[in-house]
Amino acid sequence: MTHAILTTVADRPGMLSSLTRVLADHDANITYVDIHSGAPTLGIYFEVSLPEGGSTIERVLADLLGVPGVERAEETPSFSRIYGKRIVVMGGGAQVGLVAMGAIAEADRHNIRGERISIDTIPLVGEQELAGAVRAVVRLPRVQMLVLAGSLMGGEITEAVKEVQARGLKVISLNQAGSVPDVADLVVSDPTQAGVMAVMAIAETAKFDLARQTKRRY
Amino acid sequence: MTHAILTTVADRPGMLSSLTRVLADHDANITYVDIHSGAPTLGIYFEVSLPEGGSTIERVLADLLGVPGVERAEETPSFSRIYGKRIVVMGGGAQVGLVAMGAIAEADRHNIRGERISIDTIPLVGEQELAGAVRAVVRLPRVQMLVLAGSLMGGEITEAVKEVQARGLKVISLNQAGSVPDVADLVVSDPTQAGVMAVMAIAETAKFDLARQTKRRY
Repeated sequence: MTHAILTTVADRPGMLSSLTRVLADHDANITYVDIHSGAPTLGIYFEVSLPEGGSTIERVLADLLGVPGVERAEETPSFSRIYGKRIVVMGGGAQVGLVAMGAIAEADRHNIRGERISIDTIPLVGEQELAGAVRAVVRLPRVQMLVLAGSLMGGEITEAVKEVQARGLKVISLNQAGSVPDVADLVVSDPTQAGVMAVMAIAETAKFDLARQTKRRY
Repeated sequence: MTHAILTTVADRPGMLSSLTRVLADHDANITYVDIHSGAPTLGIYFEVSLPEGGSTIERVLADLLGVPGVERAEETPSFSRIYGKRIVVMGGGAQVGLVAMGAIAEADRHNIRGERISIDTIPLVGEQELAGAVRAVVRLPRVQMLVLAGSLMGGEITEAVKEVQARGLKVISLNQAGSVPDVADLVVSDPTQAGVMAVMAIAETAKFDLARQTKRRY
């Protein structure tokens, strides 16, 4: 059973360590954690799954409240339920904007039917900057698709794409100069359609299967 | 001194607890933490600041590597350096798309000059859904501005806006029906301009000062 827990704690060293110790003692598997700074208290948010037949969430919350420095510990709606799956769009401002437009319009149609899909973007230029941002995507939570929206992408960016693909991330590229389209899972010429297809590929409410489109160009 | 650390660890309970124990022993202040699931190993990413004259990062990495189950521990570029400040845009698909277009085009101009600004969006309808998403924004890392893009927002959403404002978040609203514009820090009629102003308000490279525009309507 998965639970989201929000704690409010004193801003001093060792708090995260004390809280995770309590969670470990209850065999809670921590799938997400997040620190939100504020003064004089910090918010520390966890998503945990508790083993069946093990501790109840009430018991875990009570033990968290027993840690010195913890002011509050309560259940809260999870990010997965609120912001859902993420698509990240990066590249040149003109194209990123149009891909985002397509993706947002399509996500709207699915979110109305109960999906939760967010579209996150960063306009960014430069081979090293983009390669760094691509590599970092797999460290962000809940990301299911990367769209590379530009006019020329290759070199180190292509290497970064191969690395994140090896870790299971799907990558759509606009049809553009450079070697990125050669390695992308799907290549699309029209930025609006690229955004729409990115959403269709991850929406449970859509019939589009990226596996059947792999390496195709539109 | 701030450092970003990426560890690769065995996927078993208690790993986060063991790692944070080591960081606490070095008086490292953890400002960000993130778990990226994978099989059979997990990636756990930290941003920490170490006290001046205290442990070196090399020493901390060596001790992290000494924890049973830790396969790798190394320094890595930080998310703040890669994705920077975030603006979150939420509301109806049509307006969210246009606000995003304006914000992405403007962020592009600043990111070229060394800023790092990301635009994150979620198309979402419904009073309870939006109120929940607004409240959760302050639990997301690096968010500096919320833009509410819709045609009718009030009730519980307005209460949620007041709560996040009390925690220091700035909120721009489109000029729309409902009570949200009455409490927003700035109200803008044109969605493209709302996106542009949101970026200008948080960019170090811009001259726009939201404090001087508070409660104005454009």
